This record gives sequence, C-alpha cells and structure tokens, in this order.
Amino acid sequence: MPRLWNDTIAAHRQTVRDATLDAAEALVAERGLASVTMSQIAQTTGIGRATLYKYFPDVDAVLLAWHERQVHRHLHSLTQAGDGGADPAGRLRAVLQTYAGIRHRQPAGELAAGLHRGAHVAHAHQHLRDFVTSLIRDAAAAGDVRSDIAPDELAAYCLHALGAAAGLSDAAVARLVAVTYDGLRA
Amino acid sequence: MPRLWNDTIAAHRQTVRDATLDAAEALVAERGLASVTMSQIAQTTGIGRATLYKYFPDVDAVLLAWHERQVHRHLHSLTQAGDGGADPAGRLRAVLQTYAGIRHRQPAGELAAGLHRGAHVAHAHQHLRDFVTSLIRDAAAAGDVRSDIAPDELAAYCLHALGAAAGLSDAAVARLVAVTYDGLRA
Repeated sequence: MPRLWNDTIAAHRQTVRDATLDAAEALVAERGLASVTMSQIAQTTGIGRATLYKYFPDVDAVLLAWHERQVHRHLHSLTQAGDGGADPAGRLRAVLQTYAGIRHRQPAGELAAGLHRGAHVAHAHQHLRDFVTSLIRDAAAAGDVRSDIAPDELAAYCLHALGAAAGLSDAAVARLVAVTYDGLRA
Repeated sequence: MPRLWNDTIAAHRQTVRDATLDAAEALVAERGLASVTMSQIAQTTGIGRATLYKYFPDVDAVLLAWHERQVHRHLHSLTQAGDGGADPAGRLRAVLQTYAGIRHRQPAGELAAGLHRGAHVAHAHQHLRDFVTSLIRDAAAAGDVRSDIAPDELAAYCLHALGAAAGLSDAAVARLVAVTYDGLRA
C-alpha cells in the first residue's frame, strides 16, 4: 500500500480513538464513571457500535484509555508548570498549584472505580514524586525551602496534603497550597 | 429463660465473634486482605466451619466486622490522645501523631479492597475531621496555630498530609508530623 494511504488509515484510526475518549470524558463529567456505557459513547460520537467494538472490547477499556490520556495530560501540564519562571521556589510553587488544581477537578469516584490501580498510575505517581523531589531539592539548595528533611519525604508530604483539594472551593484550594508550602519553608 | 442463661449465651457469642475477628486480624497481617478465607479462620480459631457460618455469611462479612472494630479502636485511641495534656497545642500534636501512626500501620491494600468505602468509614472520617477541627480551633484561640485559615480547612490539610505516613519509616513519620504541624503554625 502506498505510504499516503497508510497515513490516511492511521489518521482515521486516531480520529475515531480521540472522538471515543472525548465522548467518554464528557459522559464521565456528566454522569460519573460508573454509568458510562458503550451505547452512550456510540450515540455521542455518531460512531456505529460495531465499529466502536473493533477499537475497544468493552467500556472498561475505553475508560482505561481515557484515564491514561488524562494522566498523560496531567503530567504534561505539571512539567510545563515546572518549566516557567527562573527561580526554583517559583517553579515548585507553580507545580504544587497545578497539582492541587488537578486533584480539585478530579471526578468523584475515580479512585473508587479502580482506574487508579492501573500500572500507568503507579508509573505516573513515581514520575511525579521524582519530579517534585527534584524541584524541592533545587529550592532547598537555593535556601527557599527547609533542608532539615530529605526532599523525597517532603515531596510525599506535599502530594498527600494537596489531595485535600478534592473537596474544596477554588479559594480554599489556594489557601491549601499556601499552608502546604508553609510546611516546606518552616 | 433465666437471666443468667441469657448472659451466658451473650458472653459466648461475643467470645466467638471476638475470636473470629482476632483471627481475621492475624491473617490480614500475615497474608494480606485478599487471601483470607473462612477455612483459615476456622482453622486458626478452632471454631467449626458450620458454626462460623452461623455468625458470618461469608469472609467479606468477617472482614467488614473486623474493619469496623479497627475503625472504632482507632477513633478511641485518637480520643484518648486528645484527652491527655492541658494545653490545646499539645493535645492537637498528640492526636496528629496518633493518626500518623495509624496510617503508618495500615495494611497495604486495605483501601484497594474496598473496605474503606463502607458507611462506617465515611462516618468515622467525618467524626475525625470534626474532632481535629475542634482541636485546631482551640489551639488557634490559644494562639498556638494560625488563625488566618478556617479550622476545618486546616483539618483536611492535616489529615491528608499525614496519609503520607503509609509508606514511611518510623523516623520519617515523626518528621512528617513535624512538617505538617509547621504548616499549621506558619
């Protein structure tokens, strides 16, 4: 087959896949994880059920793929937040703020539904913890955060503390980031 | 039936129940939640399988009852920690330390196994959050912790931050409590 044709097929497959995951995302936001079905996804996207099942064996596979995309996007936005700004303390703060925002917007029941037990999540968590550890190490070296406690312990503290963002208002999330950061500086 | 006879039956039932939950606890500690079976419990306690099934319909019912007892004991030890000492800051610190110890000793996989989704846990969590909120309110009134942020937001921060204790060494747990408390004072 000519290269162009292969490219067209690959692009088409990616389009179907993206549309499916976008639909899953909208349905999760609207109705919650547990009530998303293949029929709803077919209806929302306009993709036939038969075609949909060629891409994903069941709704759990769709949700897993959607969740993997989410986690990937989150890591990307966290990395971007850590790239801006010149001083280590500013980068650290930006990343903590971004992470708190992610936890804040996390749909209820995501943990309960078991998606968070996937290998992709364990991997992303380790990556995130390493990333925050290195930011804390830099900020400690610059004298902006405490150096009496190991950076990886402080990273675990931060990430857990910011988990409280899930149930808070926007204003309270900003205060949570401030309190968490104060613990790092004391 | 005479009252004495009823008392004897009640005491016997309580003994069987306690022995079952003690065995479940030992088996959970030894092999993890997912691999505990009714046969193992029968073997460990010496209670016949037929008798065991009269008390609990299945192993999930045993684990739920064990978990409810755990949660109840945890709340009791937290309340006791909050009773000692005269100053509000000392009481708050003691409770945070006790809570970190509880999270530290929590068997791995307890969350994953779904026990934490029970109504008894939601109730205990609310109770704990109210309790810590009131301790923070007292400590703030005494000028020992910050008063620029509402006590219930600070309580959510503390309880989440101390969740990091699960993966740490004993010494690191003590440092985690110190960092978390520093966030409260800043």
